Amino acid sequence: MSQQPTAKTASTETSVTPRATDYAQWYLDVIKRADLAEHSSVRGCMVIKPHGYAIWEKMQRELDDRFKATGHVNAYFPLFIPLSLLAKEEQHAAGFAKECAVVTHHRLKSIDGKVVVDPESKLEEPLVIRPTSETIIWDTYKGWIQSYRDLPLLINQWANVVRWEMRTRLFLRTAEFLWQEGHTAHATEKEALEETYRILDVYADFAENVAAVPVIKGHKTSGERFAGALDTLCIEGMMQDGKALQMGTSHYLGQNFAKSSDVMFLNKDGQREYVYATSWGVSTRLVGALIMTHSDDNGLVLPPKLAPIHVVIVPIFKNDAEKAKVLEEAGKVVAELKAQGLAVKLDDREGMMPGAKYYEWEAKGVPVRIEIGPKDLEKGSLCVVRRFVLEVPGETEQDQRKRKKSFVPRNEAIAGIKPLLDTMQRELLERARAFRTKRSAVINTLAEFESYFANKDAGFAWVHWAGTHEQEDEMAKRFETTVRCIPLPDQIPAEAKGTGTCILTGQPSQQRVIMARAY
Amino acid sequence: MSQQPTAKTASTETSVTPRATDYAQWYLDVIKRADLAEHSSVRGCMVIKPHGYAIWEKMQRELDDRFKATGHVNAYFPLFIPLSLLAKEEQHAAGFAKECAVVTHHRLKSIDGKVVVDPESKLEEPLVIRPTSETIIWDTYKGWIQSYRDLPLLINQWANVVRWEMRTRLFLRTAEFLWQEGHTAHATEKEALEETYRILDVYADFAENVAAVPVIKGHKTSGERFAGALDTLCIEGMMQDGKALQMGTSHYLGQNFAKSSDVMFLNKDGQREYVYATSWGVSTRLVGALIMTHSDDNGLVLPPKLAPIHVVIVPIFKNDAEKAKVLEEAGKVVAELKAQGLAVKLDDREGMMPGAKYYEWEAKGVPVRIEIGPKDLEKGSLCVVRRFVLEVPGETEQDQRKRKKSFVPRNEAIAGIKPLLDTMQRELLERARAFRTKRSAVINTLAEFESYFANKDAGFAWVHWAGTHEQEDEMAKRFETTVRCIPLPDQIPAEAKGTGTCILTGQPSQQRVIMARAY
Repeated sequence: MSQQPTAKTASTETSVTPRATDYAQWYLDVIKRADLAEHSSVRGCMVIKPHGYAIWEKMQRELDDRFKATGHVNAYFPLFIPLSLLAKEEQHAAGFAKECAVVTHHRLKSIDGKVVVDPESKLEEPLVIRPTSETIIWDTYKGWIQSYRDLPLLINQWANVVRWEMRTRLFLRTAEFLWQEGHTAHATEKEALEETYRILDVYADFAENVAAVPVIKGHKTSGERFAGALDTLCIEGMMQDGKALQMGTSHYLGQNFAKSSDVMFLNKDGQREYVYATSWGVSTRLVGALIMTHSDDNGLVLPPKLAPIHVVIVPIFKNDAEKAKVLEEAGKVVAELKAQGLAVKLDDREGMMPGAKYYEWEAKGVPVRIEIGPKDLEKGSLCVVRRFVLEVPGETEQDQRKRKKSFVPRNEAIAGIKPLLDTMQRELLERARAFRTKRSAVINTLAEFESYFANKDAGFAWVHWAGTHEQEDEMAKRFETTVRCIPLPDQIPAEAKGTGTCILTGQPSQQRVIMARAY
Repeated sequence: MSQQPTAKTASTETSVTPRATDYAQWYLDVIKRADLAEHSSVRGCMVIKPHGYAIWEKMQRELDDRFKATGHVNAYFPLFIPLSLLAKEEQHAAGFAKECAVVTHHRLKSIDGKVVVDPESKLEEPLVIRPTSETIIWDTYKGWIQSYRDLPLLINQWANVVRWEMRTRLFLRTAEFLWQEGHTAHATEKEALEETYRILDVYADFAENVAAVPVIKGHKTSGERFAGALDTLCIEGMMQDGKALQMGTSHYLGQNFAKSSDVMFLNKDGQREYVYATSWGVSTRLVGALIMTHSDDNGLVLPPKLAPIHVVIVPIFKNDAEKAKVLEEAGKVVAELKAQGLAVKLDDREGMMPGAKYYEWEAKGVPVRIEIGPKDLEKGSLCVVRRFVLEVPGETEQDQRKRKKSFVPRNEAIAGIKPLLDTMQRELLERARAFRTKRSAVINTLAEFESYFANKDAGFAWVHWAGTHEQEDEMAKRFETTVRCIPLPDQIPAEAKGTGTCILTGQPSQQRVIMARAY
């Protein structure tokens, strides 16, 4: 039974639409081919499939370790928020009112064999499924905080939340999504602000050094602030179509929620004062960011630090004798790589051509493939294939394929996997940085701006801006662009530094902002 | 500022009601003193506080590792189940109908300054918050399974679920709870049954070897089966009041859900056949089991394998000179213990007496406390205090306290912590086993049964039973007892083996079952 059929069992799989042809379809194709997620039969909700969920689990672990290293602990608060509680912070309630899923009944009954909602089970007070948990958490903190000795309170929650979105897109925007939400309480404004920036740094560190996605840290404009916040900090990444993606936010909430939930504490001077708050979150949207930053026309590309499988091993043989030898060697290679702490998959599925396996694991973004055949055994070498190499201008696809592949003496190959993964991790970040640089421009006039965004190669425009919220809306209508963030001073490249005048109003501006189209 | 105040800051804390006085209150007191959880302002929902959640995280890690080691992967399915989907499997829908939270609207609006549910946002079809996910998952599997090559499908989900309970109890029974639910698909009944038993073994292994809670594996009677299952296997533990607690269930679902969702596959013979299913779950209820099995009148007792903190170090000093020396040594001890992979907490809080710290960490169940004072430095020893020792009949509390404490040469003490934790882990299981043995009885007549359960020291009654579902209800009414399980053959102790006659009906019975009061 070692004879392998000639038919490529994966041949019925859809192939990936090239990015250049249709970027939106390419994104969906990558998700489908990599088997990451799919729409469910429930409006706006997705099913996160095992490979997609494994990536999320890696993200969770990396983030959770960083939260704990900065003194945070996890806890869990209710899914439900009584309507009256949500309504307490007015601005907050107004911000989320249009996207709330509401539980109104608690029982079903069968009428003439048909299952219906029992009208007699109507709740006295409707319960909103949390779109975010500030209100229920601050209602709880009221019982936990009496004095400055109880502060700071540094708590994070991993949870599902629901925001009733009309237009959904896998990972980027779904009615239900998974996220973490930090909710901290502090004795002073200063400490709360420090926390807001500390977490922004944690997010940026994760984005760049784990997900290999370069980000710009900045403030949202007042119109884009979180409902109930005094300041919203964010990290913004650039996707391969030049659009911005907000990847995480960290909010300074001042005393707003403490006031609406009446959470006061006795400070060191013995005076009662409202508590200062922050909240911050990242979600499964990060998986979307990962896909759109690194993947290519062959499917998913994963930074090694988030790859559920680092190395896949594909054995090649024509008969039982070859099979036995090849599998013996493959087993040894697996063991040696696992001993290094690597996640290794031996693909010994029967009835499937090696080419079909290559195709499948490539689409799933496994960073390194090792092919082992009889010739490799003879030569004492392994064939190591990288998922990607950095592009060389003018290179043919065939030449690039050659560069991905190397035949390396066995032990050298095994010792070389970890350094290779480190290289790939670094190269992904470099590549994404270079792409962002290429697709960013310093723009000084509205005419320049208009012509820049008329071009399909548009990206981030560094512009001076001093417009109002209404004028931001006007720009959005005319160009589909928004102020992505007011970058922190150290995020502004030399060529974009300095004061100037607003491209729309001509009013003086202290610094440039980033305008772009966005997800 | 090194002078420590004489007031015990924890003195305002409530103390724990002794088990013997009021077991139900003791349970609540332990939770409160150990700071594990509390009721939220949302009816029936609890807040899991950081210390409680940290225990759940340890449980999750241990369970998840075991699921993955047995070939399972994680995924995520929607929170919502359309009403028509839930209704597809009739028995299932009937089983959960009375406890379903139902979403009927998707928007709020403000009327005269008051936030209300927008009546115009009524959903075309109500959405039930998942009480369990068989229906939505099998609806999804329909798209994933075509041939025997797609099987088995071994998927687990970590999620929150909602069952509208009228009488709630922290951890044991709440409207929302956290759990894992495995949902597997198989090509044959044999494989599905093997999976059902495999998971039961995983649960029992976790319960006994991690949570140190001895359990009996068995079948539920038909009346107690999961709605939609052909067989429900369970693990049952005994709490310190002699009541049984169902700690996990593993269901063989046959082809019921495949039929209601029309999930067929092409088998190896080229014939279309319905898929065979299992589902299985454990929940945050396990935290309740942990508390009620091991804790004592001083608070929480944790098996070391589930302790978020293994060792707490309390420095003792009277002046700055002592403080400096003691803290230097404490820092070294922390580092040396952490280097062994232990979770260590140095409690260097100012303004709190050592005694208050002992009291707090004891209540939180930290297995080992190390006290370091100037005398210990002089002697080159450490004072190591165990959270518990096995009881010796007739011993005074003072004598027991002495036995918990030992003064050990420094390096010997540090090297001895891991073996000590192993010993404590083993002793907890042994103690719980001995307790269960003491509180179990082989009972042959209804009169005996009645007198056994009239006694407050009742526990598990091994009885012959051949009654109907209605007769089970009759026993429940008369004695508040239920058939906890029909134990697997290897779970029956020698003295309870063999055939006999039902204690109620006198009908022949193949084996004894366990009857007990239960949570």
